[in-house]
Amino acid sequence: MTGRFISFEGGEGAGKTTQIKRLAERLRGEGQDVVLTREPGGTPGAEAIRELLVTGETGRWNGRTEALLMNAARADHVARLILPALGEGKWVLCDRFGHSTLAYQGVARGMDLEELLALHNIATEGLWPAKTLLFDLPVRAGLARAGVRGGTEARFEGEALAFHEKVRAGFLALAKQDKCMTVIDAERDADAVAAHVWRVIEPMLRPLP
Amino acid sequence: MTGRFISFEGGEGAGKTTQIKRLAERLRGEGQDVVLTREPGGTPGAEAIRELLVTGETGRWNGRTEALLMNAARADHVARLILPALGEGKWVLCDRFGHSTLAYQGVARGMDLEELLALHNIATEGLWPAKTLLFDLPVRAGLARAGVRGGTEARFEGEALAFHEKVRAGFLALAKQDKCMTVIDAERDADAVAAHVWRVIEPMLRPLP
Repeated sequence: MTGRFISFEGGEGAGKTTQIKRLAERLRGEGQDVVLTREPGGTPGAEAIRELLVTGETGRWNGRTEALLMNAARADHVARLILPALGEGKWVLCDRFGHSTLAYQGVARGMDLEELLALHNIATEGLWPAKTLLFDLPVRAGLARAGVRGGTEARFEGEALAFHEKVRAGFLALAKQDKCMTVIDAERDADAVAAHVWRVIEPMLRPLP
Repeated sequence: MTGRFISFEGGEGAGKTTQIKRLAERLRGEGQDVVLTREPGGTPGAEAIRELLVTGETGRWNGRTEALLMNAARADHVARLILPALGEGKWVLCDRFGHSTLAYQGVARGMDLEELLALHNIATEGLWPAKTLLFDLPVRAGLARAGVRGGTEARFEGEALAFHEKVRAGFLALAKQDKCMTVIDAERDADAVAAHVWRVIEPMLRPLP
């Protein structure tokens, strides 16, 4: 038996971190083995690369270098955590994955989407999630929530409003093309959002053929 | 006018660092503007990535992650140092470039060469040196020299002899296919090697058409 790979996507402050924990608890309540992880990061090597990505000046890296660093972190994460966990039949819930690279480095920073797809496939040997949940809400609402959070990892949150608008539009455009993506209205209260997530995920509890 | 881009390649202890400095001096003596740089590294961002690559256990990164990190460093180096310097008409002498990735992560660590070429072209937008000098010598002789050097950046030098033999064979195979590569016998004394380098490079002093 092989596990299920689900990614959580969306802009800053969309509530991904809260919802990923709630889904993990719910799946564990159903007797499932669940691994919670995040990108960039998830393994010691990828977390070291994350440090380079999320700290420093906004202009520290151009889009091309940033995309290569993201994919270096992803290659380590996929080979050393995600694929082994899926091989053991676990559920892997991942806070951000390849769609974030397409939205941030592609749509918002202007890198070619075909190049980014080629890069993703080199880094992951073609791995994409079985289901991607896109937590969508207006940019100002998300940034207000992220601002409350604060912290030192503010390199992306510090971008201009127009950058975050491009990221949101990018995610929504990807969702229109990718039948494995589901848009979740993340402006509602956390209980309503969690209920929507569960309606999408529960059918995946059935045994794989 | 645009500058000339020359890379210095070879295994550990081949004398690249000595020879790149000698060529820089000679070119400056001819009134040329010369930039000396190295990979991984060469810019503040790329040097930060270099730290991740050259320190830690030999098995810290798999070949795929290592290749992505090398190319992330290269993207920063090309965009922020090499291309601007070439645009100003300077000579750029680089200690290692794309052929090292093909030999180390490709031939020695087993990553697909086509994937590595695709990755290089994404990172550099297709930039290759006008001339690549391959400093070749038997592996044991090179490691003996590198061993004398010592230092903390020993992650690659610490690989087994068989690894370094694959790297050498990989470089020589590349040289057979790439008409811009010249093999330099690096077992000779430094003066003889420098004289050979100059015979190869001097014709490049003629103005570009």
